[in-house]
Amino acid sequence: MGRRPRRALPFPDDTMAITRDPPPPGSAPELLYLLHGDPSDLAEALAGMRAVDIAEALTELPPSSAAKVMAALPFDLAVQVFDEPELDRYRYEIIKQMDEAAVGPLIEAMSADQQADLFRELPDADRARLLRRLDPPTQDALRLLLRYPPDTAGGIMTTELVSMPTTWTVEHALRYIGEVGRAKETVYAIYVLEPKDNRLVHVVSLRELMSADRHLHVGEVGDRRPPVTVEPLTDREEVARLISKYNLLAVPVVDEGGHVLGIVTVDDVIDAIVREQTEDVQKLGGMEALDAPYTEIGFWAMIRKRAGWLTALFLGEMLTAAAMGHFEGEIQRAVVLALFVPLIISSGGNSGSQATSLIIRAMALRELALGDWWRVALRELPSGLTLGAVLGVVGVTRILLWQTLGWYDYGHHVVLIAITVGLALIGVVTFGTLAGSMLPFILRRLGFDPASASAPFVATLVDVTGLVIYFSVALLILRGTLL
Amino acid sequence: MGRRPRRALPFPDDTMAITRDPPPPGSAPELLYLLHGDPSDLAEALAGMRAVDIAEALTELPPSSAAKVMAALPFDLAVQVFDEPELDRYRYEIIKQMDEAAVGPLIEAMSADQQADLFRELPDADRARLLRRLDPPTQDALRLLLRYPPDTAGGIMTTELVSMPTTWTVEHALRYIGEVGRAKETVYAIYVLEPKDNRLVHVVSLRELMSADRHLHVGEVGDRRPPVTVEPLTDREEVARLISKYNLLAVPVVDEGGHVLGIVTVDDVIDAIVREQTEDVQKLGGMEALDAPYTEIGFWAMIRKRAGWLTALFLGEMLTAAAMGHFEGEIQRAVVLALFVPLIISSGGNSGSQATSLIIRAMALRELALGDWWRVALRELPSGLTLGAVLGVVGVTRILLWQTLGWYDYGHHVVLIAITVGLALIGVVTFGTLAGSMLPFILRRLGFDPASASAPFVATLVDVTGLVIYFSVALLILRGTLL
Repeated sequence: MGRRPRRALPFPDDTMAITRDPPPPGSAPELLYLLHGDPSDLAEALAGMRAVDIAEALTELPPSSAAKVMAALPFDLAVQVFDEPELDRYRYEIIKQMDEAAVGPLIEAMSADQQADLFRELPDADRARLLRRLDPPTQDALRLLLRYPPDTAGGIMTTELVSMPTTWTVEHALRYIGEVGRAKETVYAIYVLEPKDNRLVHVVSLRELMSADRHLHVGEVGDRRPPVTVEPLTDREEVARLISKYNLLAVPVVDEGGHVLGIVTVDDVIDAIVREQTEDVQKLGGMEALDAPYTEIGFWAMIRKRAGWLTALFLGEMLTAAAMGHFEGEIQRAVVLALFVPLIISSGGNSGSQATSLIIRAMALRELALGDWWRVALRELPSGLTLGAVLGVVGVTRILLWQTLGWYDYGHHVVLIAITVGLALIGVVTFGTLAGSMLPFILRRLGFDPASASAPFVATLVDVTGLVIYFSVALLILRGTLL
Repeated sequence: MGRRPRRALPFPDDTMAITRDPPPPGSAPELLYLLHGDPSDLAEALAGMRAVDIAEALTELPPSSAAKVMAALPFDLAVQVFDEPELDRYRYEIIKQMDEAAVGPLIEAMSADQQADLFRELPDADRARLLRRLDPPTQDALRLLLRYPPDTAGGIMTTELVSMPTTWTVEHALRYIGEVGRAKETVYAIYVLEPKDNRLVHVVSLRELMSADRHLHVGEVGDRRPPVTVEPLTDREEVARLISKYNLLAVPVVDEGGHVLGIVTVDDVIDAIVREQTEDVQKLGGMEALDAPYTEIGFWAMIRKRAGWLTALFLGEMLTAAAMGHFEGEIQRAVVLALFVPLIISSGGNSGSQATSLIIRAMALRELALGDWWRVALRELPSGLTLGAVLGVVGVTRILLWQTLGWYDYGHHVVLIAITVGLALIGVVTFGTLAGSMLPFILRRLGFDPASASAPFVATLVDVTGLVIYFSVALLILRGTLL
């Protein structure tokens, strides 16, 4: 989830005041101050903090100071801190400032998925050098994880899981878990393997083991149905959906032969859900997803992410100038038509934006699949007509009211103008609703993320067509009178 | 998360094909067919299904058929099915069709948080009658849960947790967990209480217990820092944030005296996160959040949710007609000005929509607090100017290019027109960016959800001002020539 710097401060804002348990003291400024004082004061302050809070404070310190804080931590806590996903892109900067002899054991003790995250960040030269400092089995595990893209199950899985053959007794299993448990990512799901070929046949929960007869074999405990599994290249969103649907604490990642490669745990999945959501909201707002928090990303990096889409939309929107130019003669003859241009095209854009966000979300939740496009179209067509009629009535009322009250003089043909605006609204809103609801399907069909169908994208699409609809209706209704 | 009907079908679309483990057979149509056949076939089909998949199939059946399926399930599986949050708003309909004598034990055996969800749905008369069918302790627990709004920690917590006094030994604790574990929501976090006043002093994980010396007291095992807790009225989003930040499997909900009222588990929190995200995306699209999936909500219910905001935005957008009317004389004299109206106001809307979605998301992630508004303003001002300048250059180039290539004739004053459009773009984009980034702060300050600052809302705000900026620039540059 990246860095959330405000959280390291106690009660940074009103929203924090509702938690009973304030984040313990130990903000970045305090740590910086303690670094220059008595080392025992620093050690004491750190001992009172949670790993994630230390990690967050470190992200706010200069790397050299962060390295000094790391050196002051007891090894176990240092490992926990380095294991926090919030430290993310800062690890490499901190490592560069640390004594290289201390770095090896620290990385060795990290969890496999965080090791992989770290190595993904490293420049090639450092990667090779640091990799050689690790145990051969750790090296192998890391090479496996680094093979998978970071947005797949393989990319977010960890290899530290508890597995055992079906033939072990519950008694034996529980003793084993007590011995190795500390080093594993989760001990609450136990992966039970076929003794002869190590295929995964069964997942048993620690809860089930604890309530089971101690003399049973682990293969006989718990649910007998085949376990829910994913493949290494399964999308992380899909992993999140399965974990959430089946209320799992972890899901095993298996190869074609049914061997467990690793597990994805529920906390990794929450991070993945939140990240995906941030990307979706930013795309929906009409920009490339930022790869860092707003408070952290550099000015020019952000401008690049925003200017690209904004310029693309601007180029698309230029077609409106062409469309307006095409109807310049009509505008010249009836300037009153120009007055309603912003009102009409924005109504199309707004209705399109509603429809798009509805469909994008329903797709993300798998309520809608690609093949449902026609069912959606059949529903959005009457929706668009109804919504257009509502706005049309409001629009006609507005024009006639202003004329009656004498607030504006639309001339002799006020009724015809009102009818033009009303019909154009129905047409534009219907088109906007249909275009907005179909765009995510089209993008998905073409292999793009449906969430790229941002509100501004839809608005731009609808603006040009909206102008053509409006002026065509005007030509139809007003020919021989105003036009 | 409501109903996701497509999931009950095996491989319903391309996105499912990547999971190794298909949802087991047993779609709603198949169940409906089996209901009319041999009861043993039905029982066999159901035995092969997971509780959540049965629950999803039930949501697609008529309530009377769903009640028959429920009756065909073994009691334990029936309880699990009824405990699935996906059954949600269907439970009451199904219960009405069931034998009332069978309903009592079923509800009694459900988890407390799902009981509360069910009772929230019931009409008052049924609520009182069904409540009386439950054990007095269950009644008390339910009355407690029903006191809290459903979007708070108290509203999503469950009361089935494992707690014990500090004085128990690890040995005793593990034996106890094995005995009572099955009836508890989670056994992986154990809540350790002060023996004299039952205050929560410590949370120990089952993993820590299992690796600990069997003769230690549970009060001596694990992390000695005060546990992370929430209050019953803590917002569910805040609960989600804490669970995610501290990688918890559950967070205890405590009263002012420090007594544990219940716990919120990580799977409830995932549901809460997904629900909040759906609301945010729908609001961002410029509509009221739907309270049911798109595929399920009635036509008129959806129209109401969409028409409200659409009409409000339309009324706001009517100010553009007034603004255009104000400049009617200028348009009459220089129709060429009207050609660029859609281009210029949409650029303001797009840049505003980008800024708004960025800030809303940063606020949701707590990267930004209310007090940061001036820091954001100081950053968005130069961002807006830069983005405006980029679009301005593109706009000026477009006009001069079209003129040079002879694709359009803007007349003698083409350079002045280009300058007008360029400067107007800088002004409008800067205003749009600033307005879009400040709106979420203003809404939050006024006590509204910042996510209500939808792209269409911002666009409407910016359109009117954009017109004024554009025509003011035109008056400044073109007075004495075109105007």
